Amino acid sequence: MKQVTVGVVGVGVVGIEILNILRERNFPSKNIRVFARSERDIEIDGRLYTVEAIDKASFAGIDIALFAGTEGEAGASTLYASKFIEEGAVVIDNGSDFRMKDGVPLIVPQVNRERIANHKGLIANPNCTTIQMVVALGGIQKKFGLEQIILTSFQATSGAGRSAVSALWDESKAIVNSNDKAGNYADINKILPKTSGVFSHQIAFNAIPQIGSFQEGNYTSEEWKVIKETHKIFADSSIKVSATCVRIPVFTAHSEAIYFTVKEKATFNQIADVLAASEGVIYSAKPEDYPLALEVEGKDEVFIGRLRRDPFQENGFWMWCVADNLRKGAALNAVEIAECLLKD
Amino acid sequence: MKQVTVGVVGVGVVGIEILNILRERNFPSKNIRVFARSERDIEIDGRLYTVEAIDKASFAGIDIALFAGTEGEAGASTLYASKFIEEGAVVIDNGSDFRMKDGVPLIVPQVNRERIANHKGLIANPNCTTIQMVVALGGIQKKFGLEQIILTSFQATSGAGRSAVSALWDESKAIVNSNDKAGNYADINKILPKTSGVFSHQIAFNAIPQIGSFQEGNYTSEEWKVIKETHKIFADSSIKVSATCVRIPVFTAHSEAIYFTVKEKATFNQIADVLAASEGVIYSAKPEDYPLALEVEGKDEVFIGRLRRDPFQENGFWMWCVADNLRKGAALNAVEIAECLLKD
Repeated sequence: MKQVTVGVVGVGVVGIEILNILRERNFPSKNIRVFARSERDIEIDGRLYTVEAIDKASFAGIDIALFAGTEGEAGASTLYASKFIEEGAVVIDNGSDFRMKDGVPLIVPQVNRERIANHKGLIANPNCTTIQMVVALGGIQKKFGLEQIILTSFQATSGAGRSAVSALWDESKAIVNSNDKAGNYADINKILPKTSGVFSHQIAFNAIPQIGSFQEGNYTSEEWKVIKETHKIFADSSIKVSATCVRIPVFTAHSEAIYFTVKEKATFNQIADVLAASEGVIYSAKPEDYPLALEVEGKDEVFIGRLRRDPFQENGFWMWCVADNLRKGAALNAVEIAECLLKD
Repeated sequence: MKQVTVGVVGVGVVGIEILNILRERNFPSKNIRVFARSERDIEIDGRLYTVEAIDKASFAGIDIALFAGTEGEAGASTLYASKFIEEGAVVIDNGSDFRMKDGVPLIVPQVNRERIANHKGLIANPNCTTIQMVVALGGIQKKFGLEQIILTSFQATSGAGRSAVSALWDESKAIVNSNDKAGNYADINKILPKTSGVFSHQIAFNAIPQIGSFQEGNYTSEEWKVIKETHKIFADSSIKVSATCVRIPVFTAHSEAIYFTVKEKATFNQIADVLAASEGVIYSAKPEDYPLALEVEGKDEVFIGRLRRDPFQENGFWMWCVADNLRKGAALNAVEIAECLLKD
């Protein structure tokens, strides 16, 4: 395979993960250049990277640029993607700025790899919550057609960046050290500032049913991303998709309770067979072998367990779906897109 | 109102909460007797209670006995309820042993108070997860009829008793104190025994999609309780109820993402009006005023926010429903049943 020059833009939690994954997978790069707001050296896993200040850098010679945009803030890609493309790079953007734009393929390789070829210099990486769900449901959509998806998510703090991880850590620590009596939790409400400024409320020992801002119909921006991105990835806006997205006190890996109905009649075993054969999916058939956020952190696949039929709705099923939001939900999916670009 | 003699059986998290609530509400008791396995004195909020050993006690003269049974273990009520009843008491059982038995009313006063009168000595208190859901949906069921309920729960550890609360506290403390660098969570997986023996897995910084044991169709006992108890309380087994019940690292108060469809056409405003007028419900209309477990702990009502219409399913709606699982989910509901008994 040809060796390429790769640019990585951003060194937040996703940027670091991209650099890790490029290395882990022996990505065929002859050179990796790293860009961020300011010039500096960073060390990741014993390896030194020189970060170039993006506003002064030249982008000539870069074949593939991976933008590690964070959800919820306008990404560097709005400023710099076009400059990379002008210099001949293909940009893969993890941010949300271009995902719904016409002409920009929104790619999850296990689901719609064939659409990578349609790119005009820019390819978008979906939202973490969407990615794991469409990987889980992709085979089922192909074989039986999806009528409805009702998603409830249990999302990790790292999806909101490094400061959000620290918020959970610091709040938890302050609380459990505020009283030496094990199990004495009566005064939790009185202990802490309710928020460390990252989340709208205290996240430690809590569940916050808001990710992003409130938009049309009182759905949040995160919930609309799941709806619209799912329609675009499956190229089928007839699927009834609805979601409630919730932040919980977990560091990394999103869990999802997914209820779905299929268009064509399907048995439990048929759905299980599709899951077992799905690319990028690890399906556990035993009820007690459900995936857990803590155990999925650091892994590449989308893990599925607790498949069940609705006792009262013939074509209705549940699954419990867990994936590392920084890896398959962001960095890994972007690197996989880059790998497809080189292979196809 | 006449003054009665009350018996409270069990002094776990629910028993303590029953004693607190009887006092807070000035329950018309001339005498409160407390029973547990062994004789001892306990102090609650500065007040001393003498606990009688239940196997040696006489139950004569008790008018109402509140059994503080815990979910998931066969309760004292299987051994002693009939003895209290023989001596003339009405038993209100918080445990799960008698809930589905014919002839035993399963009561949530805000929903089906009128059925208290049918009791033959024993009245059952539903599961915590069910109670807050039927309070939230009761008015809607009455006015529009419920076609389907799809519940995903975010359940607090205190639902599994005092040792479960300690497990969350101890695990969290061991983890955050294992490394002084704020935000360094990379080694969480390596830090702790995965489980402190209360839950099947580590609960701190995790989400466990199993409450109770696995039963028919791979649903858990907790999920079947929600399904069957909802049918019994609404006296309508045609409602399609399905659930995924998940334990999360919260100490007290269960949160629920409830998706439901109604039989008769209803507008968003009609549903909102029903919620605003529902007994025992506090409904927040502003999207950003959603209830949170941390803030609902210690409160009596069922709190509802984030009401939304499904954009693609005309009669489909979401709500976010939070209640204190030890109070409205257990102790308070039992005391309210006792109050109805005295009034009706």
